[in-house]
Amino acid sequence: MLENYSKPVQTALKKVKINVGDKISIKNGNELYEGLLMPRTELGDKDSIVVKLSSGYNIGVKYDKNMKITKLASKQDSKIELEKPKFDPKKPNVTIISTGGTIASKVEYKTGGVKAIENPQELLFNVPELKEIANIKFVKVLQKMSEDMDSIDWQDIAKAVVKELTLGNAVVITHGTDTMHYTAAALSFMLKDLHKPVIITGSQRSPDRGSSDAGMNLICAVHAALSDIGEVGVVMHGSTDDDYCNFNRGTRVRKMHSSRRDTFRTLGDTPIAQIYPDGKINILSSYRKKKDIKVSADTKFENKITLVKVYPGSDPDILNYYLKKGYKGIVIEGTGFGYVPTHARKSWIPTVKKISKKIPIVIVTQTLFGRVNSNVYEPLRILYHQTDAINGNDMLPEVALVKLGHILGHTKKLKEIKKLMTKNLVGEISERSTISD
Amino acid sequence: MLENYSKPVQTALKKVKINVGDKISIKNGNELYEGLLMPRTELGDKDSIVVKLSSGYNIGVKYDKNMKITKLASKQDSKIELEKPKFDPKKPNVTIISTGGTIASKVEYKTGGVKAIENPQELLFNVPELKEIANIKFVKVLQKMSEDMDSIDWQDIAKAVVKELTLGNAVVITHGTDTMHYTAAALSFMLKDLHKPVIITGSQRSPDRGSSDAGMNLICAVHAALSDIGEVGVVMHGSTDDDYCNFNRGTRVRKMHSSRRDTFRTLGDTPIAQIYPDGKINILSSYRKKKDIKVSADTKFENKITLVKVYPGSDPDILNYYLKKGYKGIVIEGTGFGYVPTHARKSWIPTVKKISKKIPIVIVTQTLFGRVNSNVYEPLRILYHQTDAINGNDMLPEVALVKLGHILGHTKKLKEIKKLMTKNLVGEISERSTISD
Repeated sequence: MLENYSKPVQTALKKVKINVGDKISIKNGNELYEGLLMPRTELGDKDSIVVKLSSGYNIGVKYDKNMKITKLASKQDSKIELEKPKFDPKKPNVTIISTGGTIASKVEYKTGGVKAIENPQELLFNVPELKEIANIKFVKVLQKMSEDMDSIDWQDIAKAVVKELTLGNAVVITHGTDTMHYTAAALSFMLKDLHKPVIITGSQRSPDRGSSDAGMNLICAVHAALSDIGEVGVVMHGSTDDDYCNFNRGTRVRKMHSSRRDTFRTLGDTPIAQIYPDGKINILSSYRKKKDIKVSADTKFENKITLVKVYPGSDPDILNYYLKKGYKGIVIEGTGFGYVPTHARKSWIPTVKKISKKIPIVIVTQTLFGRVNSNVYEPLRILYHQTDAINGNDMLPEVALVKLGHILGHTKKLKEIKKLMTKNLVGEISERSTISD
Repeated sequence: MLENYSKPVQTALKKVKINVGDKISIKNGNELYEGLLMPRTELGDKDSIVVKLSSGYNIGVKYDKNMKITKLASKQDSKIELEKPKFDPKKPNVTIISTGGTIASKVEYKTGGVKAIENPQELLFNVPELKEIANIKFVKVLQKMSEDMDSIDWQDIAKAVVKELTLGNAVVITHGTDTMHYTAAALSFMLKDLHKPVIITGSQRSPDRGSSDAGMNLICAVHAALSDIGEVGVVMHGSTDDDYCNFNRGTRVRKMHSSRRDTFRTLGDTPIAQIYPDGKINILSSYRKKKDIKVSADTKFENKITLVKVYPGSDPDILNYYLKKGYKGIVIEGTGFGYVPTHARKSWIPTVKKISKKIPIVIVTQTLFGRVNSNVYEPLRILYHQTDAINGNDMLPEVALVKLGHILGHTKKLKEIKKLMTKNLVGEISERSTISD
């Protein structure tokens, strides 16, 4: 197991009976590192001892014969004893729909990697507080890291949600964070007549780590699922401290940091509420109230859709490629107010004009904040009035993509698509008083 | 000129001798609007009177026969008297290199649109304070809205900058805001041995508008150009108030809002400094100091480069398309830590493996904040250790694209490209102590 380490490192570790997975400390002068000894990858510096800190990060400490290496504990291949939760008729019923992701994984001490947990009930071992709030039922729909999901998974999740809501249970979905905002948007469009909370949560660090955000996120998610906010929400850390989570509307939220726990942000609006782990809910903006209306899953979806970003010198021929490949709709991430190169050496206008007569082209802005404006400048008037390009207003690029797939699942008529894409259906377009764009 | 308005609106306006371009007020009950009467576009509501407010926004006011419409002033087709600036040997010399954009435009009262100004000296009419700070020389290199620029324009700008710096002048570049951050990155890589400030500025509203940000941005830009910060910087409003500008490093800045004046943000770092219109400079982070070293323009650039964003269900065949079209390098905006769909129905791994043997594929994160991490999870190890994909670390997607074009302009050797793309050249990759990713 020490195989990729250099001879001197192997000798030093063997002398104190340390192997991969053991908890160790390394002291070198003023520096002190404590954590799990990780295996050395083939590519790394063989003289550098890799320690996984409690923060979850790996650190490489250059070996020095004067450093003091101590074994603190042996490798723990902890078998978790799963407790059978007792049903309490006085408590509400919450179903946790498990789909995979970091929140459904644990550190594998052999490799230092992260491995899926087989049984979602392991979450109750890591977060026993959940049992105090509600009777928890687990439904495992998927076991995927979210970068591997697609629209078929969204359909399966939507159906599972409707089933649980129809049984009268509140619903929390655990999910990988990478594409959580795409799923949140998909569920927002697919859950027809939704007037109940549907909460998606996850974690940036696996739940068996000391520094994991999984526990608080799950506790807040269960409180949110029992609230009167009848919308799809992403409930995740609101700050880097473990103080509260935000209830982010499913159509206004985006993953904005690769590693921070407060990665999910509501863009162009305030979150609907702050949810505290003790159950306190601090409402920040208006929302659809919970009502006893029957929800259904309207999961028709056209997955031949794509997202194209313009940049200086970009070639519009990419639109021809997608048309030829049978794509049914395109979202373009324009610059600023929603521009494409117009009076450029390679103008996008003739191609957009041609393609937008055949399949819908929706323009959003790559600035992420702010909205498309089809009138102020002459190139905007050319794009939005002389082609059939659709003004995506302030829809986030990812949300516009999901909405386009949803609309195209129901109609291929360009006029109808334009009408629906420019209309606010479930909070994806923010209103803006009487000021015309 | 009133042609697209409805008959009742035309009659009401003609009665008080109002035509397009006149300053008017409309009072209807408690509502009062003042501004310029705009022409009606063909597509709009013919009963809605379009007024351009002093904020620069158009507002549509529904006609009502009880409303009171008053003419405040006639159309001003203001001819600007250009003053010949007097040379003052005691003042420093600043060259403003004009490239177009909103800052080099004005409202055309006939159409309500925005039109280019022919002579950059008109800026001195709008911002007379500049003459108090320095002897201003104008050099017009381009007259483009920035969405129309490409790498040839960057090369022309780089050469003009070197020429002016070599003459001993400080340099400010006025530029459209939409792709300003791409140009800032391009100049950062193209200006070899730069140890002098090269400041890019622009405006979100044209300089002849009351609410324009052009004046303060220009004044701060000139102060920044005379500072001892020897780097390429985007100097634009730091807040929505007219209090200060930020000096954003050219390789860490991004346009983050379609309309706000504080749209440019330094991501993943603090701006280098706050620049106040009175000349005060508040340094916030470390920077390359001004030195008397000769700068040159190293403008070789490969423009067959592209940016691809992965999303749920995305098809890796797009990489084959770009290879076939003769592209020489691809930047992929991965999810989270820099993932592509791996164990998905459509895995990107085989295609990335194949293509990355032929042309460089650099992975950045679509979260914009945070960095790529090639080790924590198994799919990351597959992508970064079993294919030749290059870890883009915390480079912004747009910056990685520009850097790739710059590197490919100098070498097509994959090993050399990987070495340079993963090395911090001009602040595009932030350091991260001893913690390995």
